Amino acid sequence: MMGQFVYTFLEGNKGMKNLLGGKGANLAEMTQLGLPVPSGFTITTEACKRYFEDQNTINSEIKKEVESAVAELEQRVGKSFDGDPCLLVSVRSGAVISMPGMMDTILNLGLNDKNIEAMGKSTGSMTFALDCYRRFIQMYSNVVLEIPMYHFESILDDCKEANDLKDDKDLSEENLRQLIGDYKQIVYNQTGSPFEQSPKKQLYAAIEAVFRSWNNERAKIYRHLNGIPDNMGTAVNVQMMVFGNMGDSSGTGVVFTRNPSSGENTLYGEFLMNAQGEDVVAGIRTPRPISELQEVDKKVYEELVTASQTLEAHYADMQDIEFTIEKGQFFLLQTRNGKRSANAAIKIAVDFVKAGIMDKRHAVNQLGLAQIDQLLHPKFDQEILKTTKELTLGLPASPGAATGKICFNAKAAHEANENGEDVILVRTETSPEDIQGMISAKGVLTARGGMTSHAAVVARGMGKSCVSGCIELEVNEENGTIKVGEELLKEGDYISIDGSTGKVYRGKIDTVSSSLDKDFLSIMDWADEFSKLDVLANADTPLDAKKSREFGAKGIGLCRTEHMFFDGQRIKDIREMIMAKTPSGRQIALDKLYPYQKEDFKGIFLAMETLPVNVRLLDPPLHEFLPKGKSEIQEMAEQLDVSYEDIIKVIEELAEVNPMMGLRGCRLGLIYPEVYAMQVRAIITAALEVMEEEGIAPRPEIMIPLVGNPEELSLLRKLAQRIIHELDPDAKLGQVKIGTMIEVPRASLVADQIAPHADYFSFGTNDLTQMTLGYSRDDSGTFIRKYKEQKIIKTDPFQSIDQEGVGQLIKMAIKKGKAHDSHLKIGVCGEHGGDPASVDFFNALDIQYVSCSPYRIPKARLAAAQAAIRNQSLETKAPATNKMQ
Amino acid sequence: MMGQFVYTFLEGNKGMKNLLGGKGANLAEMTQLGLPVPSGFTITTEACKRYFEDQNTINSEIKKEVESAVAELEQRVGKSFDGDPCLLVSVRSGAVISMPGMMDTILNLGLNDKNIEAMGKSTGSMTFALDCYRRFIQMYSNVVLEIPMYHFESILDDCKEANDLKDDKDLSEENLRQLIGDYKQIVYNQTGSPFEQSPKKQLYAAIEAVFRSWNNERAKIYRHLNGIPDNMGTAVNVQMMVFGNMGDSSGTGVVFTRNPSSGENTLYGEFLMNAQGEDVVAGIRTPRPISELQEVDKKVYEELVTASQTLEAHYADMQDIEFTIEKGQFFLLQTRNGKRSANAAIKIAVDFVKAGIMDKRHAVNQLGLAQIDQLLHPKFDQEILKTTKELTLGLPASPGAATGKICFNAKAAHEANENGEDVILVRTETSPEDIQGMISAKGVLTARGGMTSHAAVVARGMGKSCVSGCIELEVNEENGTIKVGEELLKEGDYISIDGSTGKVYRGKIDTVSSSLDKDFLSIMDWADEFSKLDVLANADTPLDAKKSREFGAKGIGLCRTEHMFFDGQRIKDIREMIMAKTPSGRQIALDKLYPYQKEDFKGIFLAMETLPVNVRLLDPPLHEFLPKGKSEIQEMAEQLDVSYEDIIKVIEELAEVNPMMGLRGCRLGLIYPEVYAMQVRAIITAALEVMEEEGIAPRPEIMIPLVGNPEELSLLRKLAQRIIHELDPDAKLGQVKIGTMIEVPRASLVADQIAPHADYFSFGTNDLTQMTLGYSRDDSGTFIRKYKEQKIIKTDPFQSIDQEGVGQLIKMAIKKGKAHDSHLKIGVCGEHGGDPASVDFFNALDIQYVSCSPYRIPKARLAAAQAAIRNQSLETKAPATNKMQ
Repeated sequence: MMGQFVYTFLEGNKGMKNLLGGKGANLAEMTQLGLPVPSGFTITTEACKRYFEDQNTINSEIKKEVESAVAELEQRVGKSFDGDPCLLVSVRSGAVISMPGMMDTILNLGLNDKNIEAMGKSTGSMTFALDCYRRFIQMYSNVVLEIPMYHFESILDDCKEANDLKDDKDLSEENLRQLIGDYKQIVYNQTGSPFEQSPKKQLYAAIEAVFRSWNNERAKIYRHLNGIPDNMGTAVNVQMMVFGNMGDSSGTGVVFTRNPSSGENTLYGEFLMNAQGEDVVAGIRTPRPISELQEVDKKVYEELVTASQTLEAHYADMQDIEFTIEKGQFFLLQTRNGKRSANAAIKIAVDFVKAGIMDKRHAVNQLGLAQIDQLLHPKFDQEILKTTKELTLGLPASPGAATGKICFNAKAAHEANENGEDVILVRTETSPEDIQGMISAKGVLTARGGMTSHAAVVARGMGKSCVSGCIELEVNEENGTIKVGEELLKEGDYISIDGSTGKVYRGKIDTVSSSLDKDFLSIMDWADEFSKLDVLANADTPLDAKKSREFGAKGIGLCRTEHMFFDGQRIKDIREMIMAKTPSGRQIALDKLYPYQKEDFKGIFLAMETLPVNVRLLDPPLHEFLPKGKSEIQEMAEQLDVSYEDIIKVIEELAEVNPMMGLRGCRLGLIYPEVYAMQVRAIITAALEVMEEEGIAPRPEIMIPLVGNPEELSLLRKLAQRIIHELDPDAKLGQVKIGTMIEVPRASLVADQIAPHADYFSFGTNDLTQMTLGYSRDDSGTFIRKYKEQKIIKTDPFQSIDQEGVGQLIKMAIKKGKAHDSHLKIGVCGEHGGDPASVDFFNALDIQYVSCSPYRIPKARLAAAQAAIRNQSLETKAPATNKMQ
Repeated sequence: MMGQFVYTFLEGNKGMKNLLGGKGANLAEMTQLGLPVPSGFTITTEACKRYFEDQNTINSEIKKEVESAVAELEQRVGKSFDGDPCLLVSVRSGAVISMPGMMDTILNLGLNDKNIEAMGKSTGSMTFALDCYRRFIQMYSNVVLEIPMYHFESILDDCKEANDLKDDKDLSEENLRQLIGDYKQIVYNQTGSPFEQSPKKQLYAAIEAVFRSWNNERAKIYRHLNGIPDNMGTAVNVQMMVFGNMGDSSGTGVVFTRNPSSGENTLYGEFLMNAQGEDVVAGIRTPRPISELQEVDKKVYEELVTASQTLEAHYADMQDIEFTIEKGQFFLLQTRNGKRSANAAIKIAVDFVKAGIMDKRHAVNQLGLAQIDQLLHPKFDQEILKTTKELTLGLPASPGAATGKICFNAKAAHEANENGEDVILVRTETSPEDIQGMISAKGVLTARGGMTSHAAVVARGMGKSCVSGCIELEVNEENGTIKVGEELLKEGDYISIDGSTGKVYRGKIDTVSSSLDKDFLSIMDWADEFSKLDVLANADTPLDAKKSREFGAKGIGLCRTEHMFFDGQRIKDIREMIMAKTPSGRQIALDKLYPYQKEDFKGIFLAMETLPVNVRLLDPPLHEFLPKGKSEIQEMAEQLDVSYEDIIKVIEELAEVNPMMGLRGCRLGLIYPEVYAMQVRAIITAALEVMEEEGIAPRPEIMIPLVGNPEELSLLRKLAQRIIHELDPDAKLGQVKIGTMIEVPRASLVADQIAPHADYFSFGTNDLTQMTLGYSRDDSGTFIRKYKEQKIIKTDPFQSIDQEGVGQLIKMAIKKGKAHDSHLKIGVCGEHGGDPASVDFFNALDIQYVSCSPYRIPKARLAAAQAAIRNQSLETKAPATNKMQ
């Protein structure tokens, strides 16, 4: 079947976006609704594709349809290309997916030397008509004939200078006639032909130019950046011109149907009288708030209000509308779903649901995930930001804005914080020793390390702002300075970082904080109704645990125990354990650590009540607990009453070339079983005490890290079970689940052998990504950035799960694990749990939960709901829901 | 079906080892051959299993068969347990897999107070009879009644002292009668029962004791160490006693049918007249060479020679034979395939093939792989070794013995070597900076690092001896000392290391060198006739290349280019490149390196002639080329005329937390394409010049390391192809193959996408193992050792490929790669290529070649042949060939 290549606005509708483009479909839809839209027609994307297939020619079939659409248009509006009044049209591109400003537009098409005089008469203003003609020649020449703009601009500038004129508006009829003559001369000089006088020929040339603009460089780059396929083509909208600049009863404006910043249900926007759309954008004259339009033209204002309400109700979404008033007559030129802040998005969605305009599913589904972060973290004052130049740019590692004095170490940060000062901890990279400093700081800035570096992971866990991998930054801790190029800052200077954008600023910038409101909580509850995946928290402290419940976590999916070892006395005890040469010596130190661990767990169990708390036994290599600097080693020697040399010896013994693949995780647990034994004892005793003291039944789960071999898990499971049975012989806590991380590639490969020893699998997608790709998360920042630039990879695999590679191992492990036990619980506890694309991937698999740091929970809940909805839609083959960004 | 539990020697044969044990099967076989074997019968391993199943009782069914076998034996030999002449028997264990000395034996069973007098008369020597009885009581009491030996020994000693006797032989009849009385008293005291007088009861008690000895501690440990299943059980051989100690016409001896040390075709062994087997072993009297037996008893000697020839021809293998002469009558007591040196094994096999006793297949198949190393490396003088105590034990990282003065760094090693001194380089661990020192040293000893640590890999590549991971060793370079416990050695002291055993000795031990002889080359050629896998070399220098051809490499499967950068001037140039901040700055340094690389490649191409040379482009992270110590940094600063601080800055910039997963391999090639471009230019120009100058057509291949993403390979392939086309537009070198390492787990997972850009896959099994298991090869020594001790893993995955985990990824990559191109060439270039078990695994897959360091090539060739033969045997369901160790 041959398609129809041209649709008048009376024929199309909003469902025809693929064929008519977004603009064309909406113009047709508005026309269908009886709203005042200047008449016109749309040449389809299919016609564009045919144009390219036919070696850049418009074939006779399409031409025939255009001819007939033009004839119909002429008849409808009572004007014609070759008659009087003459028909003037705009020719605009209209892609399926909006590519604002990327392709070309021509206004006032149809003018020529002859009809310009008639137009002058009929409009009553020769300068208006001549100015239209001048602009048209310039636009046409540039877009269709590809003559560079500066040719025309320099002549215009010369003219204004020679006549001492400030504004284009001041050009006289004589000036304009002179300019038009000069412009036409440029065209002749550049092309060897006179300026095209036939409106029809102008039209075809313009249509071709718009088609061709699909493939101009900036459009191609935009598509590449936004992942838009190159073969979609653009539609072309041909529409009768209306003029907002025909005097004081004409005008133009832009409105949102609700406040896009707050979501408040009032018309929001601005207008200018005697102006064209471009004047509003150009900002030469200051537009007036839309409410004042009722004073200027009450009838038009009421028409606008009615049209807004109609469109909002019809599209079931807040609309962004362009309108023009031509001599008191109101026209709609465009409508589309309006962009809005996160707060507004939520308020609008909740209001719509309450008003019955939208259902919950749509309300949940249309929220932009990227915006959710905005809600949870402080932001810089946008006004101050406007006038502040960035110092440099790093990776947006943990969202939120923070400002404070530069500190280089934990001690200084702690002291400054005690003195009530805000601090930014600045390090080349952080290590577990910096935890205390990170707690004291408002934010963390590192020169090295990627999105999942130590600094990034810990900061996200704490909900602190973090910019990592700021490669231009030179940190000289010794001198107490940082440098970016020639710019130098000293310890104690103010610096500001935005962990949502990665931007770093010199000086202090005030922040404004956000909070979770009622509407937000409603949306989150609705989201959970659709989700297939539960969202749990990565939380290591009672404080984190509480925060995660505020954000709606269904439990703790990853409670790391190592951070518990860094506080004050504890680090001394763990170091004592490391220095011990015998199991009994280690036991003495572990006995000191035990009460701390137990108290921590009690706090967490209390906060989580009867929700599951999945505790991962000690994971990092022991050398992470040892000091690095000379003075710290000296201090440790004095504290523990051992020699400096002995410590150096142990540090050297424990040093590892590739600690990520060294003596850590269950390997530690097998070689020093007394450590894991102490931890299991602390967990179980804490749970029993909470039960006894508070009457709450906690749900501890015990997770063994870094298992790659079934025997590892089997041995440690037996160890844990023995202690559990010892402490809780009557199983008051029920059957305490013992599970394993799947984070070594081999674990996925032999998951069928591991499953018999596991009550659950939890994918540690960070480590699994590191080892599957061979990317050290601490070192890969540099080459991941280059790889993205060179298009070797599309996304940072630590941000968004590598579905093709790591994803295969995940699928394999699930299949093998479930083959052994179809009820095997399966979750994900890497930071990927908070990434929407990753959540989408996990949703499609047989996975029960994702776990992520507290501040990422809302986003994960929403992502889980959207993934489930999308998945359902796909299953029922319903059209994909339109999504805002 | 009920099995038969007892077989007389007339019923069994050598094919029944599983049932009769090795000894029983061979005794039966010899009997079948008509050779003079004392009569007897074997109780099967099945009977042993039944014994354990029946709660350590011999059931009536088995008893019935034993009764009837005893009756038959009595009749055959004309003696009986309760008659005169009385029947005496030996009761010996006989496992399926030999466990020498692990289980129990009882001789002279059947004696009691009554028949001892008759025996005295019939043998004509009462002291002989009494001595037999005394020994029997002692042995029976110890084995069956579990009375500790010292009870008997102290009484014997007392008796000899009281009577002033030196030797057991000097005991008088009176002494013996006294002793027997005392012995019986001990039995009574210890058990509360008199010494068993019924020969039948003695027999059953002895059989049970031998059964039980299967589960004694030392047998269990031995099985554990040698991987013998615990459920096999032992057979029991009951055989009429013959006596070599019945006077001067009696005797006993052991012979090998050929010289087990040289392989020479002469009878080799020794004998003692008037002695029992244990006397030969005990070494109290010096045995005489077997050739002298013809003077003592020509008839017996000839019988022995005939029997030897018969057995060797029958078993088609060199035999280790035990015999006894009882009053001039010749008896065979045992035959088995004789252990031999590697040299002998080869000579014997070749001689057998020449003599038509053995076919080539069997000759190749029966060689012990573990022995092959002995042939290629120097050994310690075994005599000196006997009297030398080990200092400590490390990992046998690179075979061969070496002795020399302790040096702690490359410079000292180099100087000492220049002065003609032998040197052992001793380091905590080595780094690429030590290469020059390793070249200068006879061997390398490190305190840290596993079998695939830097030291181990480089040493194997050089064919140098290396002991790594010697954990007891404390290296104090500053003081110039090493310590093992309290033992202290200084720089310049002699030390000796054996890289085949991991043993380290104090002082100097002379070494003897080995060489490849004609027979060895024959066997290797035969091996290649059976192999499915080609064996290529990992070789980085012209010298290595030549060596690898001597050892029969079919090409170079891995030519690493990084070692080429360490020599003298080159390291300066590569450092200059690293310090350069711009591509053009880097290019200047690379232009200096280019001629060196080109010359190296020319040398290698010349050595390899028309064999393929697979060059891997630069792999390690750049920081490996930077100095570490203060003085070395100072030196570099002066050499390159840059500031010390600048170098420190670059060192810090390039430092990586996990270098194994950092900026290396193709990542470097993509970020600094000028480096790879220089290397490709050097390779191709070298090949063209060799072609031009020598008329040889070299076969360079270019391999891209660390690919995990098809795009990486695609981009670098284009880069290489562009340069190749530039330099060799007419394709004089033919189509230069461009392939990839498969060493990142992801590469296996997406091998179908990688294959379109690759002419071949080469599995880098070292790195693939590291990342799949998450085991850093530099750090995993400690826990791999503990894991082996705890039986979590069976073998070190860096020595023998992890078939279940890594193996799955290898199979997956082959399947996916071949699905794209069924002709895709596939090889393995990790050190696993030299490991027999791994070769066996690779042989079963669709792999064309393995590549390993030159000195491992012969072993790999043999392993490849044996794997192919085994595979064929399995396919044709032929019985597995018997293999020596």
